[in-house]
Amino acid sequence: MNDGFYKHPLPSPPAIDFVSEEGKQLFREAIENGTMEGFYKLISTFQTQSELCFCGLASLSIVLNALAIDPGRRWKGPWRWFDESMLRIYTNIEKVKGGGIVFGDLASLAGSAGAKVEFFYASENTIEDFRKYVIKCSSSDHCHIIASYYRSALKQIGGGHYSPIGGYHCKKDKILILDVARYKYPPHWVPLQDLWEGMNCIDECVGLSRG
Amino acid sequence: MNDGFYKHPLPSPPAIDFVSEEGKQLFREAIENGTMEGFYKLISTFQTQSELCFCGLASLSIVLNALAIDPGRRWKGPWRWFDESMLRIYTNIEKVKGGGIVFGDLASLAGSAGAKVEFFYASENTIEDFRKYVIKCSSSDHCHIIASYYRSALKQIGGGHYSPIGGYHCKKDKILILDVARYKYPPHWVPLQDLWEGMNCIDECVGLSRG
Repeated sequence: MNDGFYKHPLPSPPAIDFVSEEGKQLFREAIENGTMEGFYKLISTFQTQSELCFCGLASLSIVLNALAIDPGRRWKGPWRWFDESMLRIYTNIEKVKGGGIVFGDLASLAGSAGAKVEFFYASENTIEDFRKYVIKCSSSDHCHIIASYYRSALKQIGGGHYSPIGGYHCKKDKILILDVARYKYPPHWVPLQDLWEGMNCIDECVGLSRG
Repeated sequence: MNDGFYKHPLPSPPAIDFVSEEGKQLFREAIENGTMEGFYKLISTFQTQSELCFCGLASLSIVLNALAIDPGRRWKGPWRWFDESMLRIYTNIEKVKGGGIVFGDLASLAGSAGAKVEFFYASENTIEDFRKYVIKCSSSDHCHIIASYYRSALKQIGGGHYSPIGGYHCKKDKILILDVARYKYPPHWVPLQDLWEGMNCIDECVGLSRG
């Protein structure tokens, strides 16, 4: 008997599955447009969150590895590499396992782990600021964005969530979300406007970062 | 003090780093040519091997997830999903942890986990057979190839290794290897001929599948 879930159907619209024909076409067009430059490094270190409340830690591990930040201590055998467990020395990982991590703490953790961090609250910025930042980061492979958002804005099941942004399609104004809850949803394109709305309500639900 | 290693320099040639300008160009050309069709699903489930001898189990988990094969039992919380630990019921995972897994056993394990498996020994086939199979799989997203090869053929450090093949560039006759030892080497393009040579010597060194 198959109890539990094997993925969830991706609510579409607003999302477009990365592996669909439409998703592939958006991808090709965005590459041509030069706004998938961050994709290559990010996708090379893309991983599934290893615990249900580790969306923030998994997103951060992906970005730290994509930025080639050396943790300075061993992961397995002789190798130095980030995964969620390597973030243990900077935060109470057992607490995160039980209830996720709030936005300010994740930003602080990213800095402790060696990243140069800029963090923005949607409530203190405009959607145009966000769009500019998305274009800037997706046009290079030196900076990456982790979005903190509420899934309901995308008609998805779940509460507050973190995932890295894998790229941007200018003309369609769509963002590729590399959803770290890969057991639930595949990577998908969503309207920037919808993601922005999901980011702008996170203050009230940030404790629910359970993926 | 940083003991151990933070990655290894990718021997190039023969490899071309996926994230380099040359690697990106090969990628774009191969997409245009229709031989990256398997890439989208595979990259969506690409993961780092969680133990130093789990290259075979990690490669298999990636492919099982890419094929959307339902393990039929829970992974974490209510979710059903494959990772190396989920393969425990089909094989002695502690033994694999100590010394890797031989090719025949990995093929058998893939079948037990629900995949339709065809497996070929390089010694019983020609490079032209292999090329045809690579073109077939990279032109669809219904079948994927896990290559078993000896790293020395690619001038890489390590012994026998498994990784999925992420795509193919026809004109340049190059294969994209999604190396699961991501702490060591990034995804990279290699000449099909060189990979074939690495596959063709695996019989004598298959016990060394340590990544």
